[in-house]
Amino acid sequence: MTGEEIKSTSVQYNMQSWSKQKGINPISVEKAEGIYFWDYEGTRYSDMSSQLVNLNVGFGNKDIADAIKKQVDQYCFVGPSYGAESRATLAKMLIDLMPDNMGKVFFTNAGADANENAIKMARMYTGRNKVFSRYRSYHGSSFGAGNLTGEPRRYALEPGIPGFVKFFDPYIYREPIKFESEEAAGDYYVAKLREQIIYEGSDSVAAIVMETITGSNGIIIPPKNYMPGVRKICDDFGIMMICDEVMTGFGRTGKMFGFENFDVKPDIVSFAKGVTCGYVPLGGCVISKKIAEYFDDNFLSCGLTYSGHPLGCAAGVACVNFYEKANILENVNKVGAVLKSRLEEFRDKYACVGDVRAIGLFSAIELVKDKTTKEALVPYGKDPEGIMGKILGLLKQRQFMTYTHENMVFICPPLIITEEQLLEELVKVDEVLAIIDKEFL
Amino acid sequence: MTGEEIKSTSVQYNMQSWSKQKGINPISVEKAEGIYFWDYEGTRYSDMSSQLVNLNVGFGNKDIADAIKKQVDQYCFVGPSYGAESRATLAKMLIDLMPDNMGKVFFTNAGADANENAIKMARMYTGRNKVFSRYRSYHGSSFGAGNLTGEPRRYALEPGIPGFVKFFDPYIYREPIKFESEEAAGDYYVAKLREQIIYEGSDSVAAIVMETITGSNGIIIPPKNYMPGVRKICDDFGIMMICDEVMTGFGRTGKMFGFENFDVKPDIVSFAKGVTCGYVPLGGCVISKKIAEYFDDNFLSCGLTYSGHPLGCAAGVACVNFYEKANILENVNKVGAVLKSRLEEFRDKYACVGDVRAIGLFSAIELVKDKTTKEALVPYGKDPEGIMGKILGLLKQRQFMTYTHENMVFICPPLIITEEQLLEELVKVDEVLAIIDKEFL
Repeated sequence: MTGEEIKSTSVQYNMQSWSKQKGINPISVEKAEGIYFWDYEGTRYSDMSSQLVNLNVGFGNKDIADAIKKQVDQYCFVGPSYGAESRATLAKMLIDLMPDNMGKVFFTNAGADANENAIKMARMYTGRNKVFSRYRSYHGSSFGAGNLTGEPRRYALEPGIPGFVKFFDPYIYREPIKFESEEAAGDYYVAKLREQIIYEGSDSVAAIVMETITGSNGIIIPPKNYMPGVRKICDDFGIMMICDEVMTGFGRTGKMFGFENFDVKPDIVSFAKGVTCGYVPLGGCVISKKIAEYFDDNFLSCGLTYSGHPLGCAAGVACVNFYEKANILENVNKVGAVLKSRLEEFRDKYACVGDVRAIGLFSAIELVKDKTTKEALVPYGKDPEGIMGKILGLLKQRQFMTYTHENMVFICPPLIITEEQLLEELVKVDEVLAIIDKEFL
Repeated sequence: MTGEEIKSTSVQYNMQSWSKQKGINPISVEKAEGIYFWDYEGTRYSDMSSQLVNLNVGFGNKDIADAIKKQVDQYCFVGPSYGAESRATLAKMLIDLMPDNMGKVFFTNAGADANENAIKMARMYTGRNKVFSRYRSYHGSSFGAGNLTGEPRRYALEPGIPGFVKFFDPYIYREPIKFESEEAAGDYYVAKLREQIIYEGSDSVAAIVMETITGSNGIIIPPKNYMPGVRKICDDFGIMMICDEVMTGFGRTGKMFGFENFDVKPDIVSFAKGVTCGYVPLGGCVISKKIAEYFDDNFLSCGLTYSGHPLGCAAGVACVNFYEKANILENVNKVGAVLKSRLEEFRDKYACVGDVRAIGLFSAIELVKDKTTKEALVPYGKDPEGIMGKILGLLKQRQFMTYTHENMVFICPPLIITEEQLLEELVKVDEVLAIIDKEFL
């Protein structure tokens, strides 16, 4: 097919996620390598969001490609009840990467069902029903994960599942009160969460589910003392601490897992995306030894046809090995520091930049109409004039491909990006921010 | 790794679906071809359930393997918003296989999220909340699909989602009343469903979700007039008819899709398994033109990172092409007739065989303690003495690998099985049924 034929066939036959279908105009991708991909006319685009924050190693990673082909030659699939080398190997590798309290891995197809199974296991293990998660969050779009989700994409799943309770993120930038210090902020959020847990009945709470660092809802990085405070609440009340590491896992924040930034040990970690970079769909949850032991004698009422898919696990083994071989964390921290510093310059330079938040290669620019009032460039859950779409269009004109959410632009490039490549791309952001200041405020 | 190392690593690090973890003793699979696979000691096993009723083409299909490798060389992944040839091609191929009322495809990772998105779309399109599904059913284990599910695997997800309503399957064999004819039975079940829909408030019902032919809960084949009757209820009340074709799709029943056996046109069809045979995880739903058009101007609040995964779609294109090239339906109907006839002989021959049900290569043997009272060999939802496990063990001793559910043994071999291969395997079933008659009644 030509690029045009792919586009017209797609428009005619494929339902497109999170969209009205009218007016969809996809770029047909012919080839892809590293942080770049090309359409059928030969135009090169830069992937500055790692697709959906999954393509940590970029396109065309040879180690993963070879591992997939090798697994295809053995077999693509064998049911979850059988022993398969890639499935066993990857489970062991993940446990070896985890804190010493972690015991076993339950594999799923992606992030949503990783979170679904995490809360199922927490409820079975604790015998409790309620599940806490945050307003500014995205955990997936299936009924369980979508009810965990706090942002508007949840609304399509309401009336929701009984026992799913929302609490506020540690979103200091938009807090109506001003804190004396980061530590004071952390103490405040932990105290409010503890109060809410008590009001909901601490004995009925099975789990607190958090993206370790809130992803698509704004790269909200908690104060240093926040996660240890949540850990203490969990310990005090026998609640499972579930860290959704679907985006933050596998090097994105400069540590192998996001929670390592805060010196805590979760009870369950859900993962997906970076485990294979999406070369083959794979997700899962890592559970503590204590939870794993519970299921020695208690029925695990979880399962799915492709749990521990051999091809997915083979891609995962190669991918996780690549992170180490490429010394990926060193690159993330080095290039991430450049990213953070340039974003802070943008914040100082442009009226439209209310806040920037960055950790590793995980960053967002929060756009405002007015820096003093912090009024967002578009209201929450709405964009009647399509302003964010226009901004995305300005970036796209420069072949800078990313996504926006609410009033935020994300810059989360593949973890293999070089400093030189990044600086070249940030020139485009500089240009677009100047246009926003001039034309959109 | 050796087979033993794979086994011990698996036992130590992998959580096993639908089980207590203690005592798990997986067979490590070294190689696989056609309907057979081998452990590391060289023992050959026969796959008589197509793994989890997904491996329609058996192991080692070269067309699919080559397609995967070719797609790996182009790219493994590009986000759902881009045009990718395999994604567009497969969507068109699926619509071409469907009745003329069908319009577009929304791809997911597997069957559970196919059903999740099917009900989300039905609810958005109709603006209604309630969803009907059947007691003897399995639609997946995530919160949405698991609440659709009627059998005991649902209980772990309760208290359930508001608005999910259960109705009875057309399970003639266990109905407390006796029908004069198949047609009378069909009329009865349709009338009861209509009554229940009215009692629930027909204006509030978004969808009726059915496995076209109930799968793991007993290969329950509806009377000929049942599905047309359900279709009429849907038409009368503006309810979406959703056929879960995760197991029955792609040739399993001797037609490309199960609903073709009943001359009806669903509004939404969910699929997975046979679309790629699980070589790469893939699922999705096909939606009618009417529903697709609704989303031209209305936001589709559905989405997932791996929607329309290029590698999965490439496997799907090759797989669906293979069905045609291999003239798979002809084989299913030919060998399926032999299967049905042998199962009926078993029913007449053995006291323990209460009923057999077969369509295409989709069949179950229902075991009873007493043929007259129809008392099941194990009570519903329980097997305190592990009788079904022992029966599975007797089959496994003969390298006949399948699964059981409640009091039923499934025989659903790969659709490429020859008559000779099938007859060789059924000798083992014959032996085991004789042992059950002698030792288990």
